[in-house]
Amino acid sequence: MSILIKNVNVLTQNSRREILRDVDILTEGNRIEKIGKNVRERAEFKIDGRGKLAVPGLVNTHTHIAMTLFRGYADDAVFWEAWPKRVWPREAKLKADDVYWGSLLGCLEMIKSGTTCFADMYFFMDETAGAVKESGIRANLSYGMIDSGDVKKGKKELGVGERFVKDHSNTADGRIQCSFGPHAPYTCSKELLQKTAELAEKYGIPVQIHMSETRKEVFDSIKQHGKRPAEYLESIGFLSERIIAAHCVWLTKRETKILGERGVKVSYNPVSNMKLASGGVAPIPEMMESNVCITFGTDGAVSNNSLNLIETMKVGALLQKAHRWDAEILNAQQALDFATINGARALRTDAGSIEVGKLADVVLLDLKSPNLVPSHNLVSNFVYSANPSNVSDVVINGKLVMERSRILTVDEDKVLEKAEKVAFDLMGR
Amino acid sequence: MSILIKNVNVLTQNSRREILRDVDILTEGNRIEKIGKNVRERAEFKIDGRGKLAVPGLVNTHTHIAMTLFRGYADDAVFWEAWPKRVWPREAKLKADDVYWGSLLGCLEMIKSGTTCFADMYFFMDETAGAVKESGIRANLSYGMIDSGDVKKGKKELGVGERFVKDHSNTADGRIQCSFGPHAPYTCSKELLQKTAELAEKYGIPVQIHMSETRKEVFDSIKQHGKRPAEYLESIGFLSERIIAAHCVWLTKRETKILGERGVKVSYNPVSNMKLASGGVAPIPEMMESNVCITFGTDGAVSNNSLNLIETMKVGALLQKAHRWDAEILNAQQALDFATINGARALRTDAGSIEVGKLADVVLLDLKSPNLVPSHNLVSNFVYSANPSNVSDVVINGKLVMERSRILTVDEDKVLEKAEKVAFDLMGR
Repeated sequence: MSILIKNVNVLTQNSRREILRDVDILTEGNRIEKIGKNVRERAEFKIDGRGKLAVPGLVNTHTHIAMTLFRGYADDAVFWEAWPKRVWPREAKLKADDVYWGSLLGCLEMIKSGTTCFADMYFFMDETAGAVKESGIRANLSYGMIDSGDVKKGKKELGVGERFVKDHSNTADGRIQCSFGPHAPYTCSKELLQKTAELAEKYGIPVQIHMSETRKEVFDSIKQHGKRPAEYLESIGFLSERIIAAHCVWLTKRETKILGERGVKVSYNPVSNMKLASGGVAPIPEMMESNVCITFGTDGAVSNNSLNLIETMKVGALLQKAHRWDAEILNAQQALDFATINGARALRTDAGSIEVGKLADVVLLDLKSPNLVPSHNLVSNFVYSANPSNVSDVVINGKLVMERSRILTVDEDKVLEKAEKVAFDLMGR
Repeated sequence: MSILIKNVNVLTQNSRREILRDVDILTEGNRIEKIGKNVRERAEFKIDGRGKLAVPGLVNTHTHIAMTLFRGYADDAVFWEAWPKRVWPREAKLKADDVYWGSLLGCLEMIKSGTTCFADMYFFMDETAGAVKESGIRANLSYGMIDSGDVKKGKKELGVGERFVKDHSNTADGRIQCSFGPHAPYTCSKELLQKTAELAEKYGIPVQIHMSETRKEVFDSIKQHGKRPAEYLESIGFLSERIIAAHCVWLTKRETKILGERGVKVSYNPVSNMKLASGGVAPIPEMMESNVCITFGTDGAVSNNSLNLIETMKVGALLQKAHRWDAEILNAQQALDFATINGARALRTDAGSIEVGKLADVVLLDLKSPNLVPSHNLVSNFVYSANPSNVSDVVINGKLVMERSRILTVDEDKVLEKAEKVAFDLMGR
């Protein structure tokens, strides 16, 4: 497929952060072929870009997508009370089919809010891969491994994780890539973590892990290992540039330096951290000082409750400013970088900017919207004022997935109906 | 006009916080006439409510609406550097026509994000009244008075404020009501504040004021008056149930008690406070303990940068949870109360809930949206997951103002074009 977007404004997110006015974008196959004035090539599909802003599709680096089924099911509650009572017993009753529909629901929500690529860690991941394939979105998927210190169980988990990687890497025209997903330092044995790091090296893929989300976790780590989580993971040789560590709320400055030195990528999940009252605030300024590649995640819908990365950009910036009493911290351009080029870098996908040769993951915003006028600052308007009602068209991997707010890949009504049905069925089991 | 909404789900926000399923809502004139099953009356306009959720129109209790023209013009900057340099010199060059188009732009943004009533304090308020009239929204407007301690100037300001109240109270079929708007305790003389309180009593209308937004203000108040802002205002007899105090970030527990005892209404503006890094966090739990009527405001678009009260509900709840390390604080139902019934109470308007006899200010959300599925908890879905793309129809004062996302009252394209033009013209003056 080739697509020609005519006369559009572009937040390129290239190395100069150029903003282009009234240019054409041509995609060919799954790549961006040309950007410039008066592109004359014919294309199978033409989009009138007048009054629109092309932005790189957003990259959400931490989700448990099928948890959309739990949206609104554990709100305003203390994690260690509500999750064991409400969420985990239901999660234990999840079936493959539930995960398929929950994932498809999440894919649609993300596409409609301008996200074109996400990282996921959960179970029944074959089903999530199926939903990604159908919906047209791009994803890096991992099977969430937990052995609770049982090395034998760890081997089995790693077997499942590796099988998933072998089966799904580079499928769906390259839209699906895989990673390993050891759940957290406190739920995985040292052996599982070390073996995971080795295998990730062998396959050349990322590793997703939760790290330092709560104080409890840090206290427990010190008690068990005599070290804080990042120090512990460093000491067992786990940290590398393949690692995407989600949350990283409770880090010392020394730990941010370790992450920087090892090239670890961080997924900052401000909305989830605030809603769950994880306490503290991820030390973004110190991470930036240590050259950590910071990205944005929404976390699952049970703890957010949306999968809206535009909102996450804004809330993430606001939280830093409020916490440090400094309005200059984490500006709009930096927040946009986290959500685009940094996210793509963490997931090792050749997207995150609108440049010739890059993957064609492009989102069009309708600038003819009251909340995006006036256009003094297009970056600021996107980060601080846009919302999903402004997202009109979405191109992923060179294919038009949403046109004028209408999903083209799947029957949206059917997905909503099925997801509602399996969610209620699940809660009644 | 009469409108019949058939087969709709309703968050009534009545005293029992009832949620109704599959009922009909009939409006007659500007009021809600009937709510129930199988309402058979004929109506001039019929809306199919299947798959939709009716919610009371949101009430935004603190804006400077024409500041939409400054959207994106002073981001990520220290207030006391950026405002004097960038905002105030331009504000001084504002013309009546600018304020008209900026206000109309803001009205459209609010309607499209489910807000049906707002409180405003600015200047060229005749123009804002004109925009409110045209757009179909409801508002309580005030002329922002500043005398900087100059009592003679104060008298003149009060004259302008009173003239505005006389001219515009209860106009536009009752959609426009007025209040007095002394800017803040630190920009108004004691005489102006006291005289304002008297006049507000005489006219039976609210008073909008900024209070305790920054630490600087509190320090200055202690230096000048030997008292913190709320204590000072109490000591001069200013506080009453007419007062709507915006921000209230830097309050002691003693001050929250004073506000509760006097029946003062508070406008909590979490997004603006975070973006401007006002430091601290409004003590919402203590205010609730003191029975303060708390409401939500967006503040002006220059410090937000949107006028999206759905977002404000979520961010307001998140901020409290994060700040107090307690996920149970400010739950979804309470946040919704702030944005509906409490807001209406503060503005003394007979709206804020969907009940027979109340003003017909009703917003329909399209539940057939991925981010609002499943429907385990409709209140939570609205507060924590909805966004303006879900707002489909808006009824204000019994008139259909937006139908299937299309504004019916004014030519939206023309408003966007004019607002863009005057905003750029203003910055070039």
